[in-house]
Amino acid sequence: MNPPPHRKTLRVGLIGFGVVGSGTHAVLAGNRRTITARAGCAIELAMIATRTPGRAREIAGPGVEVMQDPMRLVAHPSIDVVVEAIGGTTAARDCVLGAIAHGKHVVTANKALLALHGDEIFAAARERGVSIGFEGAVAVSIPIVKALREGLAANEIEWLAGIVNGTSNFVLTRMRDRGDSYEDALREAQALGYAEADPALDVDGGDAAHKLSLLAAMAFGGGPRFHDVHVEGIRGLQPADFAHAARLGHTIKLLAVAQRGECGLQLRVHPALTPADGLLARVDGRMNGIVVKGDASGVTMYYGAGAGSRETASAVVADLVDLARAVRQESPVCVPHLGFHEEAPDALPMEAMESLRLPQYFRIPVADSRGEKQVTEVLGRHGIDVVRRADAPGEVAVLSAPAQESQAHAAVRALEASAAVRGKVTRLRAELAI
Amino acid sequence: MNPPPHRKTLRVGLIGFGVVGSGTHAVLAGNRRTITARAGCAIELAMIATRTPGRAREIAGPGVEVMQDPMRLVAHPSIDVVVEAIGGTTAARDCVLGAIAHGKHVVTANKALLALHGDEIFAAARERGVSIGFEGAVAVSIPIVKALREGLAANEIEWLAGIVNGTSNFVLTRMRDRGDSYEDALREAQALGYAEADPALDVDGGDAAHKLSLLAAMAFGGGPRFHDVHVEGIRGLQPADFAHAARLGHTIKLLAVAQRGECGLQLRVHPALTPADGLLARVDGRMNGIVVKGDASGVTMYYGAGAGSRETASAVVADLVDLARAVRQESPVCVPHLGFHEEAPDALPMEAMESLRLPQYFRIPVADSRGEKQVTEVLGRHGIDVVRRADAPGEVAVLSAPAQESQAHAAVRALEASAAVRGKVTRLRAELAI
Repeated sequence: MNPPPHRKTLRVGLIGFGVVGSGTHAVLAGNRRTITARAGCAIELAMIATRTPGRAREIAGPGVEVMQDPMRLVAHPSIDVVVEAIGGTTAARDCVLGAIAHGKHVVTANKALLALHGDEIFAAARERGVSIGFEGAVAVSIPIVKALREGLAANEIEWLAGIVNGTSNFVLTRMRDRGDSYEDALREAQALGYAEADPALDVDGGDAAHKLSLLAAMAFGGGPRFHDVHVEGIRGLQPADFAHAARLGHTIKLLAVAQRGECGLQLRVHPALTPADGLLARVDGRMNGIVVKGDASGVTMYYGAGAGSRETASAVVADLVDLARAVRQESPVCVPHLGFHEEAPDALPMEAMESLRLPQYFRIPVADSRGEKQVTEVLGRHGIDVVRRADAPGEVAVLSAPAQESQAHAAVRALEASAAVRGKVTRLRAELAI
Repeated sequence: MNPPPHRKTLRVGLIGFGVVGSGTHAVLAGNRRTITARAGCAIELAMIATRTPGRAREIAGPGVEVMQDPMRLVAHPSIDVVVEAIGGTTAARDCVLGAIAHGKHVVTANKALLALHGDEIFAAARERGVSIGFEGAVAVSIPIVKALREGLAANEIEWLAGIVNGTSNFVLTRMRDRGDSYEDALREAQALGYAEADPALDVDGGDAAHKLSLLAAMAFGGGPRFHDVHVEGIRGLQPADFAHAARLGHTIKLLAVAQRGECGLQLRVHPALTPADGLLARVDGRMNGIVVKGDASGVTMYYGAGAGSRETASAVVADLVDLARAVRQESPVCVPHLGFHEEAPDALPMEAMESLRLPQYFRIPVADSRGEKQVTEVLGRHGIDVVRRADAPGEVAVLSAPAQESQAHAAVRALEASAAVRGKVTRLRAELAI
């Protein structure tokens, strides 16, 4: 049986020529031969729309048509697929919906866009029979979208937990390894170009919540539920917390957790103690790592760069290769966007944060050894069983057995009202299984 | 645009009802609802061929036709896909080629079969227009096939290194953590059912070489090249080597490495020192871990179970979901078996082991402190620069700067000929980057 003749070229229009856009050009150009061999058809960057056309023309050369108007690009009949690389959620949404309306496939690494407008975008794409690739939107070079939608498709996912924000992980790693203050570590990240001038989206957990809402949609169905994510950032952490955590056998990471609990789905982003010899404790600096527990697979883990121009392009171009392989055979892309077909199970109800039951870490400033004793009594009265202590002069640091959120809140209030405690109590949750 | 009506069922015939076969049944039955939602069509285990039909009938129930003759199953017109779960390379090859000849897709977790007969099987499948799924053949529940063929498709792969044999990793972990002898650790693995009565395929590196030949084919093209893999096993290791390695800041793992060197492709399986704080040092017990370095992605890592009934079934059923998604839309599976279309780049030449240049570990039995001095002189004469020493009574243990294989061989010969050395010298390579 002779194979049918196949399409020879996938023609790509690129919107935006910043970090992601220029990386995509560089990888497509640099690895052209291998990419063509893998895809079975050429992937040609045919058109770029950018506000700085001069730079794009200089880098991309004369074979690529450069324009300023992205809407001209998305409407252009010779383009098969649009790569959205401008970021943000306004113009990017217009470009993506415009491309879909014109029957183009789309590839994007824009997590905010899909976390906020994924339902609308995926529905429009389904309706029009085109595909949205977003491997780069979750964990950059780590093929976690493919792992969840396809590799682990046989599993009931029990939970997943990840370090998915490279900027905050860089800051936490510096605080742990050098004893830097939060402010100093953040300044260094900004100087290195790892953090924005306004770092809120990274350090307050919003970016991790965007990614978590996509991960959870693929793991559990029900679409991206960004507004259901409980989010706490890393601004309140002190170098002392890392020193105490180390004495307690742990480190501190900003975790994004999606978990099927007894009463529904937990979606939460917060700093947490994780075991120093665990899987996530070595995900340091700007790296990302995601642990997924399936009922058949057991624990699997995925690790790689959480940021970077070529790193993101690795995922963007992988999505282009998927498309090229399908288009070459005149096939649709057969994997549904979030891993479930429309006949997917209903969305799980959300579990209230109050029903969470995790070990707790408390750092409690005390005046003297009498204060230390009183602190233990207060914790005991609130049902907090201390399992490890790592005191320092003027501070009690404890790790407890699992306790309800409400118990932990009440204990903090009682501690701060106690005469034995001098100042604010720091409370963090601990995840002992990863 | 209304989607076309789609196929409602993928009908599966299962050959073999041992560890992999019964796990496949259990996962398909237990997670039916989620699997159907993900696949968009039901995956029905319709037929089982096994030498123990009674047990299969009892477990699978009356809806599944059970027979003894696998050739009747592969020829049966109602079957869409055959899962080969009998193992070995003779009857399994007949079943797989028979299924292909009858126009059935095939899913298998049989690494030996594909390492030895992959070229023949993939060519037959291409010719007949059917697909061979083998996610479970490389690292069981870790979706590394998908990562290499698709997730990292944009990259020139520079190297990959993995712990891909759970049995030998269990033995090495016991030797390290408990100081057990090789023999005791192997006996425990056998008692737990982790090792065969004849453990040769696991402990001598053959199984890892099967998997490496598939990994390398997906990373570098050129098909499975099992006979080109340089293979050394773990039988010669002593508990003392782990103690020395720890003092040198390392642990010892059986690594499978594929690397694009200056003169071609290196394919090698051997025990190696890896840094105690590196990515692979925490892949312990029966777990598997694979690190892949791409030129765009940078380093990525994949970790998960290296053995087990449900763990292997997780991968087998993932392959069935891939097929179901394609069959549902009457599409072919668009990803080529080894990640490259036929127009793939030519196979890289093999690099001779002699051109390898790695840091070396030597454990050298000596009589006295005069012997220790002489040993250092002998090493220096052979161009071996010692960078760290961890001596114990009667033994010198050193870690060197990178040295040629030929230098290392010559140094071992010279040491063993020296009057200062009492007995056999142990030499291991070290990988410092993972």
